Amino acid sequence: MLIIGERINGMFKNVRNAIVEQDKDVIADLARRQVEAGAHVLDINVGPASDEPAIAMVWLIEAAQEAVDVPLAVDSAKLDVFEPALEACKIQPFINSTTGAQDKLDFFLPLARKYDASLIALTIDEQGVPSTTEGRTEIAMRILVSAMEQGVATDKLYIDPITLPVKAVQDQCPKIFEALGQFRQLADPPPHTVIGLSNVSQRAQEKHLLDRIFLAMCIAHGLDSAICDPLDKDLMDSMITAELLMDKQLYCDAFLEAYRR
Amino acid sequence: MLIIGERINGMFKNVRNAIVEQDKDVIADLARRQVEAGAHVLDINVGPASDEPAIAMVWLIEAAQEAVDVPLAVDSAKLDVFEPALEACKIQPFINSTTGAQDKLDFFLPLARKYDASLIALTIDEQGVPSTTEGRTEIAMRILVSAMEQGVATDKLYIDPITLPVKAVQDQCPKIFEALGQFRQLADPPPHTVIGLSNVSQRAQEKHLLDRIFLAMCIAHGLDSAICDPLDKDLMDSMITAELLMDKQLYCDAFLEAYRR
Repeated sequence: MLIIGERINGMFKNVRNAIVEQDKDVIADLARRQVEAGAHVLDINVGPASDEPAIAMVWLIEAAQEAVDVPLAVDSAKLDVFEPALEACKIQPFINSTTGAQDKLDFFLPLARKYDASLIALTIDEQGVPSTTEGRTEIAMRILVSAMEQGVATDKLYIDPITLPVKAVQDQCPKIFEALGQFRQLADPPPHTVIGLSNVSQRAQEKHLLDRIFLAMCIAHGLDSAICDPLDKDLMDSMITAELLMDKQLYCDAFLEAYRR
Repeated sequence: MLIIGERINGMFKNVRNAIVEQDKDVIADLARRQVEAGAHVLDINVGPASDEPAIAMVWLIEAAQEAVDVPLAVDSAKLDVFEPALEACKIQPFINSTTGAQDKLDFFLPLARKYDASLIALTIDEQGVPSTTEGRTEIAMRILVSAMEQGVATDKLYIDPITLPVKAVQDQCPKIFEALGQFRQLADPPPHTVIGLSNVSQRAQEKHLLDRIFLAMCIAHGLDSAICDPLDKDLMDSMITAELLMDKQLYCDAFLEAYRR
């Protein structure tokens, strides 16, 4: 399972301060700790921390790359951030994220192809987030067809069925589980699936418990990637155990340690 | 979700001693604590604790019934225990368990009908535990057909796909998940599904973690009953959270407490 560490994000105070004060050590430390804890990719998001997001993004990428050798996921709401950011990445990067809206696909698919980047794609379109499984699968299919037309391999796509907060829209989780199973049937090679885990527990109590149980349930339906906090040890224990039960890791008595080594 | 408490079992030392010393208080205490912790049904198993299992079983049933008003699940490897035990039950009981072998079905289905008992049925037959999902589903179908022929309603059946220890047969868990989904499609009204949870972690390290993650993953595939330890608070928290994420409980900030009230 591919873990995309979420901690280098300007919405966190320590990251925001680091950006403002140009303190690379804070970013390097977050990068190292996440990778040591099991992150395979690090998400990089300037968030609300800078008025010059492209410049701040390139600075964050450089700070992270000085500390670790893993792919980075360029994560921004601003389209003009992506080209300079992808240019700055030393290892084949991730783009986080496109939607299924045609103008977004027209922008991101050529970029993904140019930089040989993996592309996280949310099943939203011009009409918003579908309330049904079928609606999500239809958008996923449209994303896959566009990718094939533009020469982006289907297994470079990480399709996200969009997790909504259980506190607000409780009936969505079973639809996410179904959608995860369906997405894998849509192409060969199948696309990867990904979730932004913490969405499920947004504004809820028992956030950590909700996150780790939801992650295990998604893994039971074939989820193979998540954007989450690798520094949450209980969460990582749940992930490792769920992977073991899916027969993805070999059992040994010290299976938690074995995974981490 | 129906929780069948597993703690009144002669393989546990305190229960064995209570049977030997005819100490009803120990059994009453276990019955009360399990029901307070969320058990809806209590499994009653003499195990290796007595040479006269029918007498010991009736004694256990009486001790439990003096303390709580919930259905009991008569659980024994000895066939001649069942009739006197079911006779002693004040509330419509559970029978734990038949297999799909014809001689077992011929014995247990008429008993279930006579006592209007729910029947836990394991997908084993004369050839043993199938190694595939399809093999499990085939036996489940045979059990359902026999039940219909003998006048036992399909929703009185609790079909158990047989969980094997992850330490010994690691590739079985994904097949259990698939089987749980398939069983529900076999009849209308659908049979219930059940697992003997602790089997998964038999002789493994990290038993509690394995149990609670496996339970959440099974619930994600529609499991609606489990034989487990309701006194394991973390396990019950996981169950409640998984039920919430399946949209079976209403979200509120104190959802763990709300479930327990």
